[in-house]
Amino acid sequence: MEERANSEGRIASRLAAIRIVVVEPSHPGNIGGVARAMKTMGLGDLALVRPKRFPDPQAQWRAASAVDVLDAVRVFDCLDDAVADCGVVAGTSARSRRIPWPTATAAGFAAQMASAGLGGRPMAILFGREASGLTNDELQRCNWHVVIPANPAYSSLNLAMAAQVVCYELRQALLAASAAEPAPAPAAAQEWDRPLASAAQMAGLYGQLERVLVAIEFQTANTPHQAITRLRRLFGRLGVDETEVAILRGILTHVERALAK
Amino acid sequence: MEERANSEGRIASRLAAIRIVVVEPSHPGNIGGVARAMKTMGLGDLALVRPKRFPDPQAQWRAASAVDVLDAVRVFDCLDDAVADCGVVAGTSARSRRIPWPTATAAGFAAQMASAGLGGRPMAILFGREASGLTNDELQRCNWHVVIPANPAYSSLNLAMAAQVVCYELRQALLAASAAEPAPAPAAAQEWDRPLASAAQMAGLYGQLERVLVAIEFQTANTPHQAITRLRRLFGRLGVDETEVAILRGILTHVERALAK
Repeated sequence: MEERANSEGRIASRLAAIRIVVVEPSHPGNIGGVARAMKTMGLGDLALVRPKRFPDPQAQWRAASAVDVLDAVRVFDCLDDAVADCGVVAGTSARSRRIPWPTATAAGFAAQMASAGLGGRPMAILFGREASGLTNDELQRCNWHVVIPANPAYSSLNLAMAAQVVCYELRQALLAASAAEPAPAPAAAQEWDRPLASAAQMAGLYGQLERVLVAIEFQTANTPHQAITRLRRLFGRLGVDETEVAILRGILTHVERALAK
Repeated sequence: MEERANSEGRIASRLAAIRIVVVEPSHPGNIGGVARAMKTMGLGDLALVRPKRFPDPQAQWRAASAVDVLDAVRVFDCLDDAVADCGVVAGTSARSRRIPWPTATAAGFAAQMASAGLGGRPMAILFGREASGLTNDELQRCNWHVVIPANPAYSSLNLAMAAQVVCYELRQALLAASAAEPAPAPAAAQEWDRPLASAAQMAGLYGQLERVLVAIEFQTANTPHQAITRLRRLFGRLGVDETEVAILRGILTHVERALAK
């Protein structure tokens, strides 16, 4: 429990060191959308470079409960100032560029950042204008280009959607790194509420089921062996829990009682 | 090159078999946002259940160049109709439920679908209302619950953002599976001998089952709603095929006939 809280705290502090920088956004609604996307993934540092309209009620509206992120926004006149204190600067881009650049998918980039760390400095991730993205000049200020693998026939993610995917991948990568790190990882694949039925309980179920199938004349009407085999396969496939066996047997018992009347 | 085109085609056809179903969306802008999110990841089959406002110019505006997805939208009065032909039905949910259900993260779910295949039927992924998500009743119609790991302090993704993340993960998983695959063994996780039962076939089974439970006085003897919920979960997680549904319904019919004597 404590370990879990520690790991959550480590992830939170790593995410706090990531700055999202949006360059010349046109629509204030998108700024609000970015703020909300960030907060859902645990990020909170948003910088804007020459936004067309900000602050704006539409930004507030789309931010929903992430108004605290909006309230903390810093607005810059030039990109260099917005990223001045950052170590790694990454630029998101849909297009491939004339000059090849260190490029990673959102997932690959996030995994690398999660494992390598940020060298004690904030990291900036840049998003460009709704219509035209980042300029070549801006992209050349970046250590990395980050692409979101998308439909080749239509790869134009909305600005806030792109921010959502990138922030999501950053959180995922930190969760994965944190799970891989410490003790043997509780995996906790599925905390089921009831124990799985034992083989004996299942045998009891199948025995009663066969008796009922005879009583209701299902066995004569169909190819009996096939049917029970398929039912065994059905229930065997994923594991029936004790309560489920109890329910199924309760039904069969009621059938038997109803027939005896 | 040709291989790449083939793989792209395979991915496209797998994505085409995935239906996004939005239940009672309030804001037409979100419908447009979902359409755009889908198209950027190569999905195109969008169904709406009782949308508050649709069609609507705001949906068009937010869809940007994904108006073809909007044009093809089908609107349904009830959820059952929207998923009638589907095999796997997954419901997105932020909350954890009283009765644990087969649950996966968006990434885990996508990976599983990519490797296992869909048994020849469309798959539906349900998204709920902006304010309140899917109801418990709607979630109980799902084989799987899908969660997006988010900031525990603020996990409320906008509807279209959630759709973006899920669609993104589906595409990522298919890309990964296609890269891992090449020549040999198509993973063949599941070569089932019969097609999975459709949601309509399963609804028919549950309907008959409930009638029989009343007829045999099982419903009054136990806490009825819990029992049928648990049975839905049981069969939902097994992935019942058509022959198995036929067997189960055959049994129920024999019970009904035996009682009528």
